[in-house]
Amino acid sequence: MRAIDFKEDILYLIDQRRLPIHEELFECKTHSEVEYAIREMVVRGAPAIGATAAYGVVLAAKEFMNDNKEDFLGKMNDALDFINKSRPTAVNLMWAIKRMRNKLSEYKDLDTKQIYTKLKEEADIILKEDIQTNKQMARHGNEVIPKGATILTHCNTGALATAGYGTALGVIREAHYTGKDIFVYADETRPRLQGGRLTAWELVKENIPAKLVADNAAATLIRDGKIDVILVGADRIALNGDTANKIGTFMLSVIAKRYNVPFYIVAPVTTIDFDIETGEDIEIEERSSEEVTHVFGNRVAPMGIDVYNPAFDVTPHENITGIITEEGILKPPFKESIIKIKK
Amino acid sequence: MRAIDFKEDILYLIDQRRLPIHEELFECKTHSEVEYAIREMVVRGAPAIGATAAYGVVLAAKEFMNDNKEDFLGKMNDALDFINKSRPTAVNLMWAIKRMRNKLSEYKDLDTKQIYTKLKEEADIILKEDIQTNKQMARHGNEVIPKGATILTHCNTGALATAGYGTALGVIREAHYTGKDIFVYADETRPRLQGGRLTAWELVKENIPAKLVADNAAATLIRDGKIDVILVGADRIALNGDTANKIGTFMLSVIAKRYNVPFYIVAPVTTIDFDIETGEDIEIEERSSEEVTHVFGNRVAPMGIDVYNPAFDVTPHENITGIITEEGILKPPFKESIIKIKK
Repeated sequence: MRAIDFKEDILYLIDQRRLPIHEELFECKTHSEVEYAIREMVVRGAPAIGATAAYGVVLAAKEFMNDNKEDFLGKMNDALDFINKSRPTAVNLMWAIKRMRNKLSEYKDLDTKQIYTKLKEEADIILKEDIQTNKQMARHGNEVIPKGATILTHCNTGALATAGYGTALGVIREAHYTGKDIFVYADETRPRLQGGRLTAWELVKENIPAKLVADNAAATLIRDGKIDVILVGADRIALNGDTANKIGTFMLSVIAKRYNVPFYIVAPVTTIDFDIETGEDIEIEERSSEEVTHVFGNRVAPMGIDVYNPAFDVTPHENITGIITEEGILKPPFKESIIKIKK
Repeated sequence: MRAIDFKEDILYLIDQRRLPIHEELFECKTHSEVEYAIREMVVRGAPAIGATAAYGVVLAAKEFMNDNKEDFLGKMNDALDFINKSRPTAVNLMWAIKRMRNKLSEYKDLDTKQIYTKLKEEADIILKEDIQTNKQMARHGNEVIPKGATILTHCNTGALATAGYGTALGVIREAHYTGKDIFVYADETRPRLQGGRLTAWELVKENIPAKLVADNAAATLIRDGKIDVILVGADRIALNGDTANKIGTFMLSVIAKRYNVPFYIVAPVTTIDFDIETGEDIEIEERSSEEVTHVFGNRVAPMGIDVYNPAFDVTPHENITGIITEEGILKPPFKESIIKIKK
């Protein structure tokens, strides 16, 4: 079962809203269905969103293939904009859309069928590159994992969050399979329980020794010296190293810094937004109240209570030990190390 | 609807496992039912547990009233021990049981019916004293609440956690009703969602302006200067001020200290355990995996995942600005201020 699979013009996604209770595929036959899948978090995780969005553009090309060129290009432009706005924080989404837009522009003089083929090739490359990138990150990241380490992670950054293997969870996989005898604590990650539902599911599937904890239990583990290293993913990284990631990451980073536990971001270079200087420029998506007031459709909070539900927070660069990318581990000062890898 | 109500030898408890969806009473007619109610968290909150335990002893006296004196005293002793072990962390439980045991000892030469009456009087006093104590704490605590303050709280420390009014939530009530124009952020408090279920319910019932947040969203609010003061309860306080409270309290205290936000414990003097020097002597209750893997009976984590589920953590005294008690606000160094109020 692959998290993202494109076959005969249908995009198959593991429906991550239904895991771990139900292992079901969500089928997208139109770009609108792809936009829905990203917005409603059928698929989530920055790299997975990027690849999914790319296939959304392919499906749009399929839908509009029989229009005349002018209509086709107009509708493709609208479709690109539409998918681009499905989630506000994930820079990989904007990056993938931009890459598809460039391809569209490059081949705009071909006929619509040929354009479709070129866009499909590009989406396939994005997917394949992501897996390669993950494996490179995993190898680099494995260098900072001591033998016998206990690793704390947050949210889901595994095969489900990417085209395969994972970012932070990819490093954990690599450490496990290279015989490092690791142990993992996974934060359940309220409100959507990506850790409890998805990371736990991946850890169980691969028999990686692990325990699940409520987010607020991690602090005591860190203080009591039970965590050797913390690995988390990223949704967007600013030029100075400030990192937007799933809500709760900032909290962990403060505790880690206070108790001197190494705190690493694991993310592909595509997660770096070279257009923003600091985390202050990152728009934080606020999601619906129901994510907090309901669990799996069941109300857990009383009627009439207001909710503040930010999806992400920003971890300041000074709390980050290193940023593990496919090009190596970036170290502070991030302002310098990040600019060096800008292509 | 009162959280704890004793009428005609039946103890009525609001079943806090069912809130906020169902407002139901749980009836205890035997001391075993009281032990169950405490263990299974039909009733929770340190002061509420104390009063409930006291009525459990009254029910035991009722049950054994027709036995001969020797049997009666033997069975009462067993019942006291049994209730005493229903939850390991709440010092008020041990305190209330000890107080009832002393009464039993004091009146052991009376007949069983008279002993029952004396125990009933004592339980009524414990209940009434708790409400008075709460109101005194609320008045003292209100002194540290600025006009227009935004207050963050954790878990449930309200009328449901006590005989009435509340500890930390009692201070919030007092600030609200004295026209301080406050705003409250309530942590939902995983895994049992006492904040999302119970505190939110109390806040909605009393129209106190508030928002509910996932526990891990509080850190950003604190950093961004949106919180003026943090108020939490306590399950046990050591002589040096180290405080055991609901899991997540320690995490908040580290963030609060880092960003210079006042962090107060609100607890009656009965919560202080004068027999322990520091937090290291506090046994932390570890509760069942199901609290994390299931929400309201529905599985949210995969089969086969292990869980670490501590119910409490210990906040070190150096992270605490003050301890608000019915006798005034204790200030650091707590070693000195606490010993002064020992009776």
